[in-house]
Amino acid sequence: MPPLVTPLRERDRLDVAGLEHLIEHVLAGGVAGLFVLGTTGEAASLGYRLRYELVERVCKQVAGRAPVLVGITDTAFVESVRLAHHAAGAGAQAVVLSSPYYHTVAQPELWEYLRHIVPELGLPVFLYNMPSLTKVPFALDTLRRALDLPEVVGIKDSSGDMGYLHQVGRLLRERPGWALLVGPEELLADAVLLAGAHGGVNGGANLAPRLYVELYEAAVRRDLARVAELHARVVRLVGTLYAVGQHGSAVIKGIKCALSIRGICDDFMAEPFHRFREPEREQVRRHLADLGLLDAR
Amino acid sequence: MPPLVTPLRERDRLDVAGLEHLIEHVLAGGVAGLFVLGTTGEAASLGYRLRYELVERVCKQVAGRAPVLVGITDTAFVESVRLAHHAAGAGAQAVVLSSPYYHTVAQPELWEYLRHIVPELGLPVFLYNMPSLTKVPFALDTLRRALDLPEVVGIKDSSGDMGYLHQVGRLLRERPGWALLVGPEELLADAVLLAGAHGGVNGGANLAPRLYVELYEAAVRRDLARVAELHARVVRLVGTLYAVGQHGSAVIKGIKCALSIRGICDDFMAEPFHRFREPEREQVRRHLADLGLLDAR
Amino acid sequence: MPPLVTPLRERDRLDVAGLEHLIEHVLAGGVAGLFVLGTTGEAASLGYRLRYELVERVCKQVAGRAPVLVGITDTAFVESVRLAHHAAGAGAQAVVLSSPYYHTVAQPELWEYLRHIVPELGLPVFLYNMPSLTKVPFALDTLRRALDLPEVVGIKDSSGDMGYLHQVGRLLRERPGWALLVGPEELLADAVLLAGAHGGVNGGANLAPRLYVELYEAAVRRDLARVAELHARVVRLVGTLYAVGQHGSAVIKGIKCALSIRGICDDFMAEPFHRFREPEREQVRRHLADLGLLDAR
Amino acid sequence: MPPLVTPLRERDRLDVAGLEHLIEHVLAGGVAGLFVLGTTGEAASLGYRLRYELVERVCKQVAGRAPVLVGITDTAFVESVRLAHHAAGAGAQAVVLSSPYYHTVAQPELWEYLRHIVPELGLPVFLYNMPSLTKVPFALDTLRRALDLPEVVGIKDSSGDMGYLHQVGRLLRERPGWALLVGPEELLADAVLLAGAHGGVNGGANLAPRLYVELYEAAVRRDLARVAELHARVVRLVGTLYAVGQHGSAVIKGIKCALSIRGICDDFMAEPFHRFREPEREQVRRHLADLGLLDAR
Repeated sequence: MPPLVTPLRERDRLDVAGLEHLIEHVLAGGVAGLFVLGTTGEAASLGYRLRYELVERVCKQVAGRAPVLVGITDTAFVESVRLAHHAAGAGAQAVVLSSPYYHTVAQPELWEYLRHIVPELGLPVFLYNMPSLTKVPFALDTLRRALDLPEVVGIKDSSGDMGYLHQVGRLLRERPGWALLVGPEELLADAVLLAGAHGGVNGGANLAPRLYVELYEAAVRRDLARVAELHARVVRLVGTLYAVGQHGSAVIKGIKCALSIRGICDDFMAEPFHRFREPEREQVRRHLADLGLLDAR
Repeated sequence: MPPLVTPLRERDRLDVAGLEHLIEHVLAGGVAGLFVLGTTGEAASLGYRLRYELVERVCKQVAGRAPVLVGITDTAFVESVRLAHHAAGAGAQAVVLSSPYYHTVAQPELWEYLRHIVPELGLPVFLYNMPSLTKVPFALDTLRRALDLPEVVGIKDSSGDMGYLHQVGRLLRERPGWALLVGPEELLADAVLLAGAHGGVNGGANLAPRLYVELYEAAVRRDLARVAELHARVVRLVGTLYAVGQHGSAVIKGIKCALSIRGICDDFMAEPFHRFREPEREQVRRHLADLGLLDAR
Repeated sequence: MPPLVTPLRERDRLDVAGLEHLIEHVLAGGVAGLFVLGTTGEAASLGYRLRYELVERVCKQVAGRAPVLVGITDTAFVESVRLAHHAAGAGAQAVVLSSPYYHTVAQPELWEYLRHIVPELGLPVFLYNMPSLTKVPFALDTLRRALDLPEVVGIKDSSGDMGYLHQVGRLLRERPGWALLVGPEELLADAVLLAGAHGGVNGGANLAPRLYVELYEAAVRRDLARVAELHARVVRLVGTLYAVGQHGSAVIKGIKCALSIRGICDDFMAEPFHRFREPEREQVRRHLADLGLLDAR
Repeated sequence: MPPLVTPLRERDRLDVAGLEHLIEHVLAGGVAGLFVLGTTGEAASLGYRLRYELVERVCKQVAGRAPVLVGITDTAFVESVRLAHHAAGAGAQAVVLSSPYYHTVAQPELWEYLRHIVPELGLPVFLYNMPSLTKVPFALDTLRRALDLPEVVGIKDSSGDMGYLHQVGRLLRERPGWALLVGPEELLADAVLLAGAHGGVNGGANLAPRLYVELYEAAVRRDLARVAELHARVVRLVGTLYAVGQHGSAVIKGIKCALSIRGICDDFMAEPFHRFREPEREQVRRHLADLGLLDAR
């Protein structure tokens, strides 16, 4: 499942054609769903009007061909709820919620927050563990308590902490029904093979959806030789394409730049980021060629 | 200048009477201005509708008796601009802007962000250095470049890093006209005496505005004996009142609780925080009594 | 390979009988080598005299039945070199070196440090990536440069960062001959199956060497069913035995306590740590029973 | 009081003449004592033999003209004790002890460590708060407990956290007899004027001892005009001389380089650091000239 990038023409204007193109591209690649308004989707950088428009357009375009998950993480409780209701009205299947990320919350505060907000959202909820950006993880004890909230249906872990992921996997084995999704794409194979994960929400699936779908499927059928081959391609993609820029923004910039090179959508980025300039773009082009992704699905 | 707490009845409803009461309380204490929608004001936890309403009510109530500064920090460029325009329309005198705080921006990105957003805000701008929550400081080099933006009129430093503050003070001595305000109230005396600061934006000034005003004035007139006496009271307040709770939220909880005990406004807090329960409230009451603040201005 | 705990009677006195017992225990479990004076071995907490004595005793007792690797990480260049020479004289096969850990070194400084120290050590060198304690990782670029140092034969990665581990694996595939060992035991299976790792240096192998050896062997022969079974036991061990104490010292305390319960060696710990008291010891005992490890090899 | 740099010819050989020269230089500047083997003294980077030799030489050269404090911070309890005894034998007046810094200790563990080690040291003890390098601060509660250890006579705070320093000042006012020394030199004036500090341990006092002594004395006699003038020079020194290099090592490199330029001692540095090359040396020379320190005391 790709955490869909948000194609933009300007900071407050969608690249509508690019969005449609991108959606068709990933659906054609066989993805199991779309997660919009995540970190890769630059959600936090987008105004609310545009977020609402995006949700509507994506749901309309997807038209039931795959579930749409909507990121509603916000520092303000009421804005998260409002966006969740909008997503429900637009036909989304679930929402994705991280910890509020300006103030540093303690775990008991995070648990109380979950208890208050989850029942108000009106859609099934995935928790989203992203401590490098939110400053606050979902500690295992908090997760254990959250298992009792009937509206919560799974967790997306983007911590990159494989030890944590394995403990979450152990926790979930005791409470079947929750889905475990993994964020960093280099961990997809590990997570499915060994942590009981049910899938990945991987940025690269914007660009090469088929690669990630095939890797997932190979892992599910325990085809180790195929897993090793596809996993090596993913590791190479991460080690090259996402290493072009020098800042934390390099991953999203790399993906958007690659999508633009392949003609799928615009690479404009909302502040505080900006698209790659020509020298970096040339590097991305070269990496894409090396990876055989200049015109792959 | 107090970073005004936001009196609430519920998570999306202002305590209107409490807000009026609080404004009159701090104005009577002689404060030089009001900073609304800062960290202490729980800005990030409030929905936009309520933020807008708050700005309007504060500007109307203050009615020109003191400048009103409005925090517009946001992860989304367009929401910051929208709030700034609203503040200008409501009669605010300036806006206060930190770095966007979900994505981790690098300094060149932060500088580009400033260059883009500052000219669009329509009001004088204070920068707000708050790296413990935004993850990103205004590095001295970035500040130096920002000195050339005519709309920027000062900086509020809440880093608590006195070495940094002294370097900022040195920088500003070379470029007169900028204001340097200090966040942590234990640093107000140091900052005015030795770093060339022009004032403080101190949470405790919600509760005891006169104390902070007198400390500032004593520092300005170099009355060291009086500074020492008042500074010791501030340090004691910080070491007791703000040390009641065990989480990062203790400061705001302590201030709101103390205001509630003194009958000034409600202590309801927006998620992810919640007001103190009775045992903590009892401790706050005892500290207030010890500090002679049960009914002070 | 176990990072051998250091059995102690007092802070400066070895539990000699316990040490011999422990060595025979892990050798009987089939381990591929012994790593002494690592983090789990409390190396940093031990005086130099005792470190030297330990190296001698271990080499003598092992007597060539398995390679002995000696941790020589130190803040002082000359102490690392001295210990390395002592290890060579005692018959050790290799040394293990992290970044110097008091001062915070930058990557160019770390690379220069490596260039200076590695040729002086007189034994093959494993690099040891342990940023949570040393504050400084071996960045991929530094590793790439270190591949050209002929004395360096491998890396032990204890970062727990699986994305990093996969990139290291990719790097090493291009330069065969280096060994990649993984520290966190929950990552052993992942690392061998998917990152091209050649083994693990896992604390739990002090206690249950056979379990880790079998897991490694199952991973090497791609027996996924057996891997899943053994990996689940390791994850459970980590999630229970290492979660008894509340501080960062819980892992070492848990292992030493379990070894003491099983009668293998003393659980005395050098300051700044101390052994578990009776309530924690009782919990460890219960977890050991649940794990079937009360008298396992 | 300067945290004395350690003049070296090579990584394991003192610059004996430089050391003598440096000691006479700072004594002539009127310093109240010498602190050897601190962070600025590169203690952690020096072998034990050299540390012992240094203590002996300094005590002999100082010959009672000022107290000598010896840093004994170590990861190993027994090495700290051994060095303390050596210092006592050589005639030092006190030892300086931070938290053990490889393992991450929790506060209860740190308190227990203090309770065990302090009575064994045989000299009065200063605690040394340096969390940026040791990873662990002395929390206020731990300090409060340590006030009851009769051998502890003071604390050197190098956290740079002025809020913490003020709280320590408040704590000590209740228990007279403890000395409070401040590390960062930009905080010396603040600390003496407002936090009740009794002095500073400031790196720049290696280079310009008179400047720091005069600043301290002006602060003690509440001569604000003179304080402001001297403080501004210190802030300028920090903002220029210590900003030449780009890594965390810039401060020590800058001081050693400046001492070398002024002909006081060698600027060789023990690994993992190395002296400035010519371009940086030229910048240091220029800053020294601007600061009027090319041949000042």
